[in-house]
Amino acid sequence: MTNIKNDLLLRALKGEKVERPPVWMMRQAGRYLPDYMKLRDKYSFFERVETPELATEITVMPVRQVGVDAAILFSDILVIPQALDVEVQMIPGKGPVIPNPITSMEQVQAIPDIDVKDRLSYVFEALKMTRDELAGEVPLIGFAGSPWTVFCYMVEGKGSKTFDKAKAFCYTQPEAAHLLLEKITRATIDYLTEKSKSGANVVQIFDSWGGLLSPLDYETFSLHYIREIVSALHEHIPVVVFAKGCWFALEEMSKMPVSALGVDWTITPHMAREFTQYQVTLQGNFDPARLLSPISDIQKLAKQMVDDFGPYRYIANLGHGILPNIPVDHARAFIDTIKNYG
Amino acid sequence: MTNIKNDLLLRALKGEKVERPPVWMMRQAGRYLPDYMKLRDKYSFFERVETPELATEITVMPVRQVGVDAAILFSDILVIPQALDVEVQMIPGKGPVIPNPITSMEQVQAIPDIDVKDRLSYVFEALKMTRDELAGEVPLIGFAGSPWTVFCYMVEGKGSKTFDKAKAFCYTQPEAAHLLLEKITRATIDYLTEKSKSGANVVQIFDSWGGLLSPLDYETFSLHYIREIVSALHEHIPVVVFAKGCWFALEEMSKMPVSALGVDWTITPHMAREFTQYQVTLQGNFDPARLLSPISDIQKLAKQMVDDFGPYRYIANLGHGILPNIPVDHARAFIDTIKNYG
Repeated sequence: MTNIKNDLLLRALKGEKVERPPVWMMRQAGRYLPDYMKLRDKYSFFERVETPELATEITVMPVRQVGVDAAILFSDILVIPQALDVEVQMIPGKGPVIPNPITSMEQVQAIPDIDVKDRLSYVFEALKMTRDELAGEVPLIGFAGSPWTVFCYMVEGKGSKTFDKAKAFCYTQPEAAHLLLEKITRATIDYLTEKSKSGANVVQIFDSWGGLLSPLDYETFSLHYIREIVSALHEHIPVVVFAKGCWFALEEMSKMPVSALGVDWTITPHMAREFTQYQVTLQGNFDPARLLSPISDIQKLAKQMVDDFGPYRYIANLGHGILPNIPVDHARAFIDTIKNYG
Repeated sequence: MTNIKNDLLLRALKGEKVERPPVWMMRQAGRYLPDYMKLRDKYSFFERVETPELATEITVMPVRQVGVDAAILFSDILVIPQALDVEVQMIPGKGPVIPNPITSMEQVQAIPDIDVKDRLSYVFEALKMTRDELAGEVPLIGFAGSPWTVFCYMVEGKGSKTFDKAKAFCYTQPEAAHLLLEKITRATIDYLTEKSKSGANVVQIFDSWGGLLSPLDYETFSLHYIREIVSALHEHIPVVVFAKGCWFALEEMSKMPVSALGVDWTITPHMAREFTQYQVTLQGNFDPARLLSPISDIQKLAKQMVDDFGPYRYIANLGHGILPNIPVDHARAFIDTIKNYG
């Protein structure tokens, strides 16, 4: 482990006792900070992601401006399809678009074996640059989408409420679906391994769309592949898995060698602890929209959240990404409440 | 109770033993049947909803064409805001739009007390016409949105993945939010009472967006008002509550005097039974996208579903509305599997 001054997050991930819970916010890099919005007006999405200097600046911003206990590299889960030669466009105000989505076994088979280290060198460069910039101030988190979530975009071709095309592909062409999921899994393992070597102290897997599947299909099309990634990585770096809407799989997920599980805000801390048998470190779960509440409510609810999860084996966070319209002083009130806890 | 030939649904709602579980599909009236699509090409959405002859034809269609055990009146949850003088537009391919959403206490206070019976007479006429057309063949279900779900559209102004504006209205203007929720609740009670008098044998409340709230906020902004409606109605007519994504409230909901609770497909039958203490009739929960599977898979999964819920205190259904692109023979395979169960 590198020498990190504020190592609260790393200690909470090991299950050690801490003075207070660490706190960071999903999507903290980008989105709501005014200085980020200035960069957004000046550079396109992919310029921001692919220019290490910009990614570093955006990643470090919330550490300096709202005082979170960890940095998470500014990037995107869709760098994986790009690395696999699947074109991704980012349409402002609309989200990602994949002009030629995957619809057949032929397309899946045509996806080449790639050298992730070479294809995504800009990510690893950004990580090294950020690590140097942070100089051990706080830990640095790297992330990837879960294979299922990345698959959803590659097959559906765009964002969706229900990702029915992606689901139908699994149900009608299961062999092609599994081959694609395997290819994404292999690339993701290489990607996160290289992130670990480039300065990430922790990696987090985001399964944003697992909650669209039935428990049985979740096991088959998502958790199976997450488990492969966790197995390949956990001896080298702490792994956090956040599967939105997947309360039904929490018990099963707690049996993986993860360092923490993220939970969204539609579960009480008590229920989340029960499902995970009070053993694993949990991360979450403030309703992102609740940061629109008056500051006094934010303080009250954030304090209650820590009371309910308990101070150990716990990482304070939101239950999903911060919204773009959150006032900075509201985000800061959330962070400060945790930092002053106890 | 009127004299209904196929009374499987009514008996399952009473908790009686049945030869086999009854089966119907949410959104079965409209959406996927080719004969419905012909009407959709010919008449606008509101023409279809507001013309009793058309609503009757659409309602009876799935009874005759796929053989479901209940009819549910073709209508829309947004007739309530319309009755409250809030304009609703239906944009094909985009969904509902409310050009002047509610953003202030002044607007809430300006909503008039209305005579629902008069304002929504076309709905009650459609119910009577459908009852006559069915002539006791199967029970007829009437429905309404939950106050929270109707509120979401009235405040957000359109569909949304997260309904953050609606949530922010609750968090920043709770008095105005509660007054609006009360006004919707009162209108909904009048509406469902009148539906009961006009020929509905069962009413169902759809809480489509309750799952966006934390358990605590769900109690405050949604379940509280559903409870009011259930209290006012349950002695007159069986009430079913379907709250999508609200697994966390199932135990609490099972304490209401409901005749059944709907569950979506992201919960196993076993977990749903556990949360509801094996007492209340449950309805659900086939993944709507799973109807895109090959017919042999549909048959296998539908049979497994009944095995897992058990044959009594159970109504077979989807876990949400049927999708527009489901082939009719796939829907029929689902229905037939339940009808041949045992």
